[in-house]
Amino acid sequence: MTTQVPVVEQIMSANDQLAAVNRARLDKTGVFALNMMASPGAGKTSLITRTVEALKSELRIGAVDGDIATSIDADRVAALGVPAVQINTGGACHLDASMLQTAFSRLPLKELDLLIIENVGNLVCPATFKLGEHRSVLIASVPEGDDKPYKYPVMYRGVDALVLNKIDVLGAFDFDVEYFRQGVEPLNPGLAFFPLSCKTGEGLDAWLDWLRNEVKQYVPGNSG
Amino acid sequence: MTTQVPVVEQIMSANDQLAAVNRARLDKTGVFALNMMASPGAGKTSLITRTVEALKSELRIGAVDGDIATSIDADRVAALGVPAVQINTGGACHLDASMLQTAFSRLPLKELDLLIIENVGNLVCPATFKLGEHRSVLIASVPEGDDKPYKYPVMYRGVDALVLNKIDVLGAFDFDVEYFRQGVEPLNPGLAFFPLSCKTGEGLDAWLDWLRNEVKQYVPGNSG
Repeated sequence: MTTQVPVVEQIMSANDQLAAVNRARLDKTGVFALNMMASPGAGKTSLITRTVEALKSELRIGAVDGDIATSIDADRVAALGVPAVQINTGGACHLDASMLQTAFSRLPLKELDLLIIENVGNLVCPATFKLGEHRSVLIASVPEGDDKPYKYPVMYRGVDALVLNKIDVLGAFDFDVEYFRQGVEPLNPGLAFFPLSCKTGEGLDAWLDWLRNEVKQYVPGNSG
Repeated sequence: MTTQVPVVEQIMSANDQLAAVNRARLDKTGVFALNMMASPGAGKTSLITRTVEALKSELRIGAVDGDIATSIDADRVAALGVPAVQINTGGACHLDASMLQTAFSRLPLKELDLLIIENVGNLVCPATFKLGEHRSVLIASVPEGDDKPYKYPVMYRGVDALVLNKIDVLGAFDFDVEYFRQGVEPLNPGLAFFPLSCKTGEGLDAWLDWLRNEVKQYVPGNSG
């Protein structure tokens, strides 16, 4: 099996190169890009629609929605009146930099401040494929269980912010927030953490403040 | 990128060959193997512990638990007094046939009737890697949302049974069971469907009857 390894490394390297090209293009047009990752059903699209609703009067937002099939997610975001592009990966389990490059050609990049990228629902593979984003966010959710940082360390290790969605149902599940955070801390010390509910709106303000501030502090070509 | 395609096909084919070797070994020792797949946190381990508790007096059961890290799941199953082997994949997003082969060497196969294999939590990648199992089961869960068959068709297309877990929280989520089933039907017509709650025990009997019957009807070397 060792003969396969160089091929994998070569693919990863090609993706990293293309991610750098994407980043340069975003920086040239002054667009801050956010890569949102999560398990299937954690609430990526719900958080994106909440975020767009809250910030679209102050920021020019566009969205890219990655899914294996359907345009359900992009349709939900586009319904808010912002440009949204659906990427259907076919069978692929993550977005990669070349897919984002394809999406660029269908977006008015020069007219955007913030590009929100919704990755394929998957707690493993998206972690290792950079797209060219400036920041990445992981959305965990209460029904998934509090042991996920322990079981999926790679994803938790690599992100810039962590959302814990569906806190409105904490009472219905055996979810120990302290145990969850203790699992995250050694992987990603001091990680920005936003417990919230997209359903009730509780906790959303802190998340929006963080994102607003990231976009404000963004200096094209000088971030990372 | 076209130069990569034959390599991918070669890997898949090697896995299929090894899965056939695993199947032959299972059939030689008369062990019925079940591959359980799901998103992270859908309740794979909970369903396995419920199943072991219910059937261990009538069937000799062993378990293989796949995770990227930790032995949390295998520990939970082993606590019930059945042989359980943890496979840590490192970073890999699915079990493959070679990993199962490794687990075989640490299991008393000749003393088992049923081997339950818990795959890595992932709604995409495990679908395309056969392990040598006789039947595969997908565990969906209410909090994930009712649109998952539409978005992750490959997984829904390939399984022999579908569990919908966490029906005890149907009231707290906007989950339309009919819309969910309408998504499944064209992908996998007539698929055995078991809505249940591992928490309350509701619906478990129908699932257990199905599994009991599959093991009973199993003729080594003549299944598939």
